[in-house]
Amino acid sequence: MDKTQQDELKKAAGIEAAKLVENGMIAGLGTGSTVRFLVDELGRRTQEEGLEFTGVTTSRRTQEQAESYGIKIVDIDEVDHVDVTIDGADEVDKDFNGIKGGGAALLWEKIVATNSKKIVWIVDESKIVDTIGKFPLPVEVIPFGAGHVIKRFEDRGYKPVLRLTEDGKPVRTDENNYVVDLHMDCIDHPQDLAEDLINTVGVVEHGLFLNMVDTVIVGDPHGPRVMTNSNK
Amino acid sequence: MDKTQQDELKKAAGIEAAKLVENGMIAGLGTGSTVRFLVDELGRRTQEEGLEFTGVTTSRRTQEQAESYGIKIVDIDEVDHVDVTIDGADEVDKDFNGIKGGGAALLWEKIVATNSKKIVWIVDESKIVDTIGKFPLPVEVIPFGAGHVIKRFEDRGYKPVLRLTEDGKPVRTDENNYVVDLHMDCIDHPQDLAEDLINTVGVVEHGLFLNMVDTVIVGDPHGPRVMTNSNK
Repeated sequence: MDKTQQDELKKAAGIEAAKLVENGMIAGLGTGSTVRFLVDELGRRTQEEGLEFTGVTTSRRTQEQAESYGIKIVDIDEVDHVDVTIDGADEVDKDFNGIKGGGAALLWEKIVATNSKKIVWIVDESKIVDTIGKFPLPVEVIPFGAGHVIKRFEDRGYKPVLRLTEDGKPVRTDENNYVVDLHMDCIDHPQDLAEDLINTVGVVEHGLFLNMVDTVIVGDPHGPRVMTNSNK
Repeated sequence: MDKTQQDELKKAAGIEAAKLVENGMIAGLGTGSTVRFLVDELGRRTQEEGLEFTGVTTSRRTQEQAESYGIKIVDIDEVDHVDVTIDGADEVDKDFNGIKGGGAALLWEKIVATNSKKIVWIVDESKIVDTIGKFPLPVEVIPFGAGHVIKRFEDRGYKPVLRLTEDGKPVRTDENNYVVDLHMDCIDHPQDLAEDLINTVGVVEHGLFLNMVDTVIVGDPHGPRVMTNSNK
């Protein structure tokens, strides 16, 4: 499948997900290439159909795109809940465990998701996997003492790599932290790994989103496919 | 006991703890009023007795004080371990569970402690308690979505108060985060609380240091008293 075809599938998934946003809702808007199509569609409906909703964003990028359509964006702390958050994901398995954070926005994404009544992910087929872990798992780490955290990850066989910019400096998140990607290839026990990571002093958050998502909308040549999580 | 007497006890505890630092060691140096006396004594020994050791600090304040005596200070990531870390504590119980972070430096303190072979706390008698919690427990929280974290703490009965500066703005840590103090009065199950806090999305770290300390040196009118943790 070439990039144009893949973009068509992403776009179809984005348009399908946009239907979940109704007048008066508070909607969390994620980040990424599929979410761009979602925001385009929500912008179209805002301008052409008079859709009125309030958005909460997980990155400055999405905020700018949404505001360019006249969508009202507020801070997460200005609302007491979020009705639905629609976001992308880097990988998701059949138990609805996912990896997010390829774009280094995992912390804000997780904070918004945690405060959402319903979570929807829009992905293309390539993101659906048997076992998560082929996509390197991002972990947000405090710069102070980061070398020791990386050493600890190495000792545990997590294959950590500090994420660098093109000119070789550590990538900084919106919160000014580092991102360490774990190249584990295959995460057989995601719950145990999540426990270990969050209890490691110096770790702020990790990209494992375990059984958090309610609905996954998959771009498919035969039309968007909807996977519903009945165990949440 | 007046402040002068209390300072004398703190000073005696600081001098006693300084004996643990020997030539060639890498020593973690904490923060606080008792640690000031420790660093004064280490500075005296450096200048008068030719003591040579390398210090790792948990705050810019301590770093400046130590460097003023010519003590060599390096970053935590420049050493592969710390031989002994000497720090204060806000409360400690008979099971060697403590609260730290009154000075808002808990994250760096915990990172240095985690990488230390031995941890020593120097305190005055008033810090030794039956049950921790009378001292408000500091929790370092990401500003993005902090209102929701505080709401969650309220729902759980943790009595959270966002720490403010004198002019009413949120206090910022060295990592630019907020500090939320939990006024629980009495923490009966510190391990459960620690688990809950660290698993709350938006929490970076908390001030519970549970069974981490090896030795507590208590300032006492009859001379410094040493409590040794045999369960670590």
